[in-house]
Parts: sequence; C-alpha cells; structure tokens
Amino acid sequence: MKKGAEILTSFGRRPASGTPPDLEARLRRVRLFLCDVDGVLTDGTVFMAGETEAKQFNILDGLGLRFLQREGIKVGWVSGRASPATTQRAKDLRIDFLSQGSHEKVPEIEKILGQAGVGWDQLCYVGDDVLDLGALKRAGLAVAVANAIAECQALAHYVTRNSGGRGAIREVVDLILKAQGRWEALVKDYSR
Amino acid sequence: MKKGAEILTSFGRRPASGTPPDLEARLRRVRLFLCDVDGVLTDGTVFMAGETEAKQFNILDGLGLRFLQREGIKVGWVSGRASPATTQRAKDLRIDFLSQGSHEKVPEIEKILGQAGVGWDQLCYVGDDVLDLGALKRAGLAVAVANAIAECQALAHYVTRNSGGRGAIREVVDLILKAQGRWEALVKDYSR
Amino acid sequence: MKKGAEILTSFGRRPASGTPPDLEARLRRVRLFLCDVDGVLTDGTVFMAGETEAKQFNILDGLGLRFLQREGIKVGWVSGRASPATTQRAKDLRIDFLSQGSHEKVPEIEKILGQAGVGWDQLCYVGDDVLDLGALKRAGLAVAVANAIAECQALAHYVTRNSGGRGAIREVVDLILKAQGRWEALVKDYSR
Amino acid sequence: MKKGAEILTSFGRRPASGTPPDLEARLRRVRLFLCDVDGVLTDGTVFMAGETEAKQFNILDGLGLRFLQREGIKVGWVSGRASPATTQRAKDLRIDFLSQGSHEKVPEIEKILGQAGVGWDQLCYVGDDVLDLGALKRAGLAVAVANAIAECQALAHYVTRNSGGRGAIREVVDLILKAQGRWEALVKDYSR
Repeated sequence: MKKGAEILTSFGRRPASGTPPDLEARLRRVRLFLCDVDGVLTDGTVFMAGETEAKQFNILDGLGLRFLQREGIKVGWVSGRASPATTQRAKDLRIDFLSQGSHEKVPEIEKILGQAGVGWDQLCYVGDDVLDLGALKRAGLAVAVANAIAECQALAHYVTRNSGGRGAIREVVDLILKAQGRWEALVKDYSR
Repeated sequence: MKKGAEILTSFGRRPASGTPPDLEARLRRVRLFLCDVDGVLTDGTVFMAGETEAKQFNILDGLGLRFLQREGIKVGWVSGRASPATTQRAKDLRIDFLSQGSHEKVPEIEKILGQAGVGWDQLCYVGDDVLDLGALKRAGLAVAVANAIAECQALAHYVTRNSGGRGAIREVVDLILKAQGRWEALVKDYSR
Repeated sequence: MKKGAEILTSFGRRPASGTPPDLEARLRRVRLFLCDVDGVLTDGTVFMAGETEAKQFNILDGLGLRFLQREGIKVGWVSGRASPATTQRAKDLRIDFLSQGSHEKVPEIEKILGQAGVGWDQLCYVGDDVLDLGALKRAGLAVAVANAIAECQALAHYVTRNSGGRGAIREVVDLILKAQGRWEALVKDYSR
Repeated sequence: MKKGAEILTSFGRRPASGTPPDLEARLRRVRLFLCDVDGVLTDGTVFMAGETEAKQFNILDGLGLRFLQREGIKVGWVSGRASPATTQRAKDLRIDFLSQGSHEKVPEIEKILGQAGVGWDQLCYVGDDVLDLGALKRAGLAVAVANAIAECQALAHYVTRNSGGRGAIREVVDLILKAQGRWEALVKDYSR
C-alpha cells in the first residue's frame, strides 16, 4: 500500500520557486481582471439536486471585484462549462465580460482583450486547471490558486494563499489595489 | 513564482497584539448585540441555484442569540447586502433588529441604538470586512471573526478563535454570558 | 486586542481527562442508540434558500445506524428543533424513534426508553450542546462529539475524534459493534 | 473521559504500509475505471431540503473522467444507494456505466466487466466503506480514498492524498494518465 503523499502527482504540489522580482510591476500594470470560475471563484464543487445545479461563491471575492470596477479595472469570467448558477452570479455582480462553454480559452480571452482595448501584458488571469494553461502562459500577471494543479502553479507569477471559493480572488484583488495605491483610500473611506 | 504566504496581504493576517486589560469590563457592559451577516453568521459563501440564493447559518450561533435575548440583551443584524435567506433566518430566530442593503452601516446602527435606547459604549459589534470598519471603530466591544481582514482585526478588542458560520458568534455570546455571570445558571438549568 | 485562543471559553475546549476504565463495559451494554441531530448528525449548519431549510447528513453515519438496527439495537433522534429535512432523513433511514421540537430532552428520552423497554444504563446518547446536558448526565454511555461545548465533553465517557456530520456517529457505532463482537462478521460478510 | 484519538477505531486510520513495487505496472494495466459515489465522488454528505436530496460533486474529478474516456478508458459508477442527483451527474458527464441501489457490488461489477470486455486485473476500483471491500479485494488496481475506513485502506494498492469529493478521483486519474504516458501530451495540448 502506497500513500498519496509519497508519490509525485500533479495535484496540489507546489514547485520550488524563485520569486519574480517584478511582481510589483506586474500588479501595477493590470487594467483587466479575468478568471476561471469552477475551482477559482468556487471550491470546485457543484451541488446536484435532481436536474438543478448549484454552486457556492464567496462574498469577499464579490466585494473585491466591485472594488476593482470602481477603480476602472474591468472584470470578466472565462469558464469551460456553461452553468445557470454562474450566469446568475455574474449578473448579480454586474461582471463586464462572461464567456462560458468553450474549452479553448485563449481565443475567448483575445476577443475580450479586443473589446476592452488592452493587451495580454495588462491582463491578470487566475486559473486552476489544464484548461487555464494557455491563458496563464500569456497573461502579464498569471495567478494560480492554492488548489491549482502543479502545471498551473509552475506558470504562475503568484500562487494564492487562500484556495478557490475561500477568498483566493479577493487576495489577488487586494494585492492589485495595494500595488496601485488604491487600498488605503478605500479603507479610510469605510473607516469614517 | 511567489507564494502568498511570503507577501503582506490584508487577508487573514493577525496583528501583533497587545491585550486590552479591560476586555472583561467591555463584556460586562454589553446591552445590545449587533453583527454583520455574510462571513460572520455564515462562512461567506452564497449558493446560487439558478436565480435562488442560499446561505448556511450555524445552529450554535442561533441558540446563543436566543440565550442573549432571554437575558434581556437585544440582538440585530446589519448587512450590506439584501437577501431573502437572511430575512427568513432572522424571522426564524426572532431577531430584534434587521438592516439590509446599505453600505453605510454607521447611520443604520445609530438608528438601532436610538430604538434600543443604548449607547455605542454598550454595543457589541462583530464584523469581518471593510464595510464593518466604521462600526468596529465606535463599538464598546468590537469583535472581528477569525477570518476577518487585517484592518478589522486591528480595530477589534477581541478576535474570535472560530471563524464565521462555524461558531464565531456563539463564542462571543458565551464570553458575554460568562462575564455577566449568567452562563453557569444556564448550564445548571439544562443539566438537571 | 486579545485573541480567542488565550481566553477560557466553553467552546471546543477539551477537559484534561482521566480514562474511564469501564468504557468497554459501557460499549457492550448498549441496547438503544439515541442522538441529537444538529451539530451531531450534521455539522451544525442549516442552509436557508428563501423559506426552505436544508441540512447535510453523512452517508457513513447512515450506513452505521443501519448496521446497529441489523444487530437488534434500536436507533432514535432527539432534536430541540423541528425540521422537515430531519423528518425526511429519518424516514429514509427508517429511524425507530424521532422526537423533535422540545427543549426538554430528558422526558422525551424517558418516553422512548419506556417504548423500547430499556433503562438509562443501556442507553448510548450522543450530544453537542447545552440542551444535551441532562441526557449526557444520565446515559450509560455518554458521548460528546469533537465539536461539543466543554460542558458536554466534561460529562462524556467518550469524545469522538470526528466532528458532527463528518463521521462522529459512525465512529461511535463502529466502537459499539466492535465491543459487542459484531464488527468482524460484518466486514467478512462484505469482503467475500 | 476518553478521547477518540487514543482508541483503536476503524475510522480513518492508516495501516503501516509496505509499498507495492508494482504500482506503476498496475496503473499501466488499467482499461476500465469504476468507483463508488458517496464518500468517493462526494465528501459523503447528502443535503436534505424537505424531500429533495442534493449532493456535491467535484469539477476536477469530472474533467479527469472525461480525460480518461478520451484516452479510451471507460468509466463507471457503482453505488449502493439510488439517488436522482447521482443519475443527473452521470448523465452530464456521459459516464459509460452506472449501477445504483445494490449492496452486492461484486456481481454488479462483473456485469460491467462483461459488457466492457475487460478482466478484474484491468480494473481500477476506488472505494471508501464496507460495501466496497469485495471489489477492492479483486481489482487489479484497488484504491481507497483518504477518508476510507481502515479495512478499505488495508486492501488498497494506493490510498489517495485527497479525500472524496475534494479531488481524490482526479488524483488517481492523473496517476493513470501519467503511468500510461498520456499526461504530458494533454498538458502540451492545453498549453498552446
């Protein structure tokens, strides 16, 4: 009997990492924020109740995305699966771009880049699985969530401390807002 | 590649803390108990099933709030988001005050203080995110849940050991009941 | 700012314990198995979707209770709250006794003991909160789940390693079946 | 008072293990992938909302099973319980074989082996509880999830690091794809 921990698997392993000295610069450059949905905005579980599918999103993430929008950074979701729960949540949060149902994410993202008028180097993309590899390879700021497969983590400029659906997105948002000098004003605004 | 743990982020960091010598006094003074909902009474996740939104509350918290009411301490919830699930749960628990949908929490709380006839110094407020900063700054007993952002934790007189939706509220309730000398009677009552 | 871990609270603390030398004897004596529902068969969360309340039960627990029944040990649930989700799950599992909605659990249990024709000394009771204190004080085998309040744990002959809704009940069932010499036959039966 | 951790229980204990030197060979031989549902594809919880039962599946697992199918390895689920949620999820993922409602899993699996035209030695089976013991004893590659009972873990050639519903199945899938030399091509395909 061989235990999982003793074996090399792509799942959840973190590569020995060097630190990109330019993380701050990458955070400052972000003008568009795109991310995967399942496993990134959620913890990767789908609830089946008969034919109805439900998913759990995180309030902290939602508020963070609003903060980005308020600062002029557009937000979009790019999911390989189509799901009414995703559509509804995107509507509630007034997400700027929503692409669902295509396993080919790079062309989907290129369409959004065109509409937003920004380049790959100004894009922050957050993912967790093989479908995200192409986008992570190209994004100016590539982020893998804590629960991402090793291949995603290896491509990422930053791996979150929080896992998908548990504040991973908010963690990245806060880093961007801080790097761009906007976090303190926001905190002061709410501390009055 | 840079890992989250190595970077300063506002998320879930606990400030090096001094202990307020007057925590006991603050606990004894509480006459009104108000808290945020998402991330405090829940773990911050919302379930989307098509257009229906669901949230998970904790039974221990619910029973604790009843205990407070039995001892004459009024209870209220102040949420920046409006949600039918919150409304229903508040109704089930016969919560005394419910404010939903305003991002400006301080004026909402001042209305409740007026109705309850108590001052900020007699208020226990529990929060987790930026929208709670103003209330935490003013409350006689300011509490941040374990999963609160660092800015909330820095303002708090007490940071819970349990996280939101996992007994954080009950933990605070028990501390208040003990400080006010009411816990032992309650336990004896049920141990007969 | 004072952190939760530094303060005495009733929540989740485990008493320094002596081991009852008679745990085996208590396990062997069990003829009736009763337990609380919320926090014991569930993790204590209730899902609110508008007016509908949902709860999560554990499959391992369910199969364990069936095993007990197959061995002639009757099973019942005693909950201070009434909930359609509890009623449905009890029906699915063909639970022998179901009491819901009374905060006074001792008289409820005495009714069941009368119907089952067994005494308190033959009863295994599993609980987590103040409403369970009276039953835990009287039961021949008193069990507190890992997430029980300290007062329950102090009264218990056994504190589970698993928490409520995460296999706590199954853990107790397996201990009973083993102490009564019935586990091995069951495993052999299914290993064929 | 005796704590769970001090007592021998069948629940979640991992046997001191020797490593089967032939794990790689077993992974390479797999032509059919069957698994239990509750506790393996899910974390073992069922959500009761009145009479409706819901369960949570994992996206990573789902995508992994698709990868297997794309490589010509058929996939099936064998559950002792019948559940509409399982039926719906199997349909969404286009699972090749689905058996529900029989506690006697070995004959069910033998039917599937016949239909798929493969032998026990080419079967990977993943389970967690007593109902899975017979299948684990026979399968060419027997896998127990991290949360499986000790009896399952003792029979397994591999115990997953991830628990049921949290990526356990995907972990096994990735190991198979790697052993069969198919993982790298898949990653390259998506990294373009």
